[in-house]
Amino acid sequence: MKIQRCSAIADRMKDIHAFHVMDILARARELESRGRAIIHMEIGEPDFSTPAPIIEAGIAALQAGRTHYTPALGLPALRAAVAAYYSEHYGVEIVPERVVITPGSSGALLLALGVLLNPGEGVLMCDPGYPCNRHFVRLLEGRVDAVPVGAATDYQLTAGLLARYWQTETRAVMLASPANPSGTIVPSESLQAIAAATAAHGGHLIMDEIYHGLVYGSRLPTALEYGDDIFVINSFSKFFNMTGWRIGWLIAPEHFLPAIDRLAQNIFLAASTPAQYAALQAFAPETRRILEQRCQAFRERRDYLLPALRALGFDIARQPAGAFYIYANCEKFTTDSQAFARRLLDEAGVALTPGCDFGTHLAATHVRFAYTTSLENLREGVRRLGDFLQAVSAVQKTSNRKTPSSRR
Amino acid sequence: MKIQRCSAIADRMKDIHAFHVMDILARARELESRGRAIIHMEIGEPDFSTPAPIIEAGIAALQAGRTHYTPALGLPALRAAVAAYYSEHYGVEIVPERVVITPGSSGALLLALGVLLNPGEGVLMCDPGYPCNRHFVRLLEGRVDAVPVGAATDYQLTAGLLARYWQTETRAVMLASPANPSGTIVPSESLQAIAAATAAHGGHLIMDEIYHGLVYGSRLPTALEYGDDIFVINSFSKFFNMTGWRIGWLIAPEHFLPAIDRLAQNIFLAASTPAQYAALQAFAPETRRILEQRCQAFRERRDYLLPALRALGFDIARQPAGAFYIYANCEKFTTDSQAFARRLLDEAGVALTPGCDFGTHLAATHVRFAYTTSLENLREGVRRLGDFLQAVSAVQKTSNRKTPSSRR
Repeated sequence: MKIQRCSAIADRMKDIHAFHVMDILARARELESRGRAIIHMEIGEPDFSTPAPIIEAGIAALQAGRTHYTPALGLPALRAAVAAYYSEHYGVEIVPERVVITPGSSGALLLALGVLLNPGEGVLMCDPGYPCNRHFVRLLEGRVDAVPVGAATDYQLTAGLLARYWQTETRAVMLASPANPSGTIVPSESLQAIAAATAAHGGHLIMDEIYHGLVYGSRLPTALEYGDDIFVINSFSKFFNMTGWRIGWLIAPEHFLPAIDRLAQNIFLAASTPAQYAALQAFAPETRRILEQRCQAFRERRDYLLPALRALGFDIARQPAGAFYIYANCEKFTTDSQAFARRLLDEAGVALTPGCDFGTHLAATHVRFAYTTSLENLREGVRRLGDFLQAVSAVQKTSNRKTPSSRR
Repeated sequence: MKIQRCSAIADRMKDIHAFHVMDILARARELESRGRAIIHMEIGEPDFSTPAPIIEAGIAALQAGRTHYTPALGLPALRAAVAAYYSEHYGVEIVPERVVITPGSSGALLLALGVLLNPGEGVLMCDPGYPCNRHFVRLLEGRVDAVPVGAATDYQLTAGLLARYWQTETRAVMLASPANPSGTIVPSESLQAIAAATAAHGGHLIMDEIYHGLVYGSRLPTALEYGDDIFVINSFSKFFNMTGWRIGWLIAPEHFLPAIDRLAQNIFLAASTPAQYAALQAFAPETRRILEQRCQAFRERRDYLLPALRALGFDIARQPAGAFYIYANCEKFTTDSQAFARRLLDEAGVALTPGCDFGTHLAATHVRFAYTTSLENLREGVRRLGDFLQAVSAVQKTSNRKTPSSRR
């Protein structure tokens, strides 16, 4: 019995799942190693490398020997630069002390949940949603209060849903706008109502704004406008194209800062020093020009891909306003999106993310398209997808003719 | 009541403390800003910048646009390089699949404990010891089974102590060799006995070998020699002088790797990409020559500082064999090491770490000296310390003469 216990893995790991997209990616790489050309629409990472001014700042930091630890909450100059960005971009004044530089938004999520959540306390979040959120809650022995959302609410939470799903032990609400996997936003009136309802329940809103720069319409307000007790998660990864550097930030309520400082000291020591020096150039005018061009490229991709997918028969209720994702209802073709994604990859060389990565609600009838590849690749992907669906449909028709009653 | 709950900080944060050395450091910086010259013997970080070949590899990676995510467990080439290092340096063969590249050894600790520890389960660890260890356990709702250790066992665990302190819910043993704060090692026979006892109890050994390169005598064996079910934590921070890059590694038992992969995907995504490419040069012959010179410099510093401290009246039972720390008994001067450290800084401009950062056992009568500064600075520090202790002793003698009975 002792031997068995020795090899036992902690219970939490039963609930902390791999991303299914990693299997898709591994299979895609395998096919590529055999010479197949794969169209990647599964990857949740910009195809662009980090803009040159940021890279140059990173190189300059290394040349200057900036390789020691920074303070746990980050370089004062970077915290000030982020605070200045809020003032300029959003017209919201926050003191630099509220800005915590973290190892990616992953670090920010762990800090926010770490200082908020006791074991057994709940966190309201959308299903479908970013899968790591529920796994962070599980790591801390919290409870995920999943709110099933669909096309009717743009795959987003509403104040009405919040009221319906709030429980006694609910402690926080996690919300993302634009969201992964849907790319949809929370309209500002709704965000304001959710913030007010969360505060009225004595909870905290943890707002994921990591796709904020990637919005293809009017600018979004930051949730910080709607209360001082809100945690805002952001990142240099997506909009600033710094994924591999692992650097993000958290704007935290002042009251929590001493605890966050203690937790950060103990579990990270600090975020990467070269990354922090590099990120100082993320807000430079030259960098912004590059990022705006890239944002425009993402918009063009969305504007191509969305009607093309609809024309193929995918049901996408409303145009996603941001990020680089389209969450498409594929029930016209399948009620097993995971098998569908695997087959599409094997037979047509197109990689997608099946809905099961984002939860259980509607997962079997949805897939996520990421337009993190060139327009040319997207066109080729759509062409292949069209051929594949035609072939599937032809087979289905044949089988329908054979067994007409079984298709009812 | 709701309002109160809203601002409540999670219970775990009552037990997750700041490093007291951060207060010392902040006070030192404040004094420096007023023009005082401070001798820093509090900082647990090499004063050397990263060796040039590693920096150059980091720069080359950035120039090549290596800014995207790597696989969650790390770049295959780096995992292979670490595995090769074990073969060459220790004569231990491990498959590269067992090497997990992490964001610092902090990341490795979180992964190891995350897949091992259920809430309420205990982890045996030395008091004094590296403070983050107990805080990681607390973060995961585990229980710290502290083992008070002193000069009699070189501030290290023994198989005898393990047998005495093991409890029903104990799940793992954390051990460091060389250790922080003492710089002492676990002799290989003792390590072997501890590994065997841990396995016999059905537990796992989590072995911190981050100071392994910094040993000033014969080479240490890795704990991997003593079992396949041992977790070994290591880092590019200390010996390889890459602190600010945030990169380390974990060698895990094969059985735990799928769970570790899932956890890493979810809580880190991956370690820093530029840091991983840079670290590929950590094992290059040119880098090793630089590191060996630096190791020699640390040895010279220890060989100067240890007798100098003993001559001043600090009680240090045995010569510490590695790392860059000396844990000194200061009860000849004080029974409040924290006040002593503060006063030493204010009055003599010498910064130390008080024992309370490392636990509670003997904390009030110990301070940690870090020889992470030049020999010249160490000499000046010792000179100041001597003057300070003489002044203290003179005052004590005067006060003794005034109230002779109160000193019994």
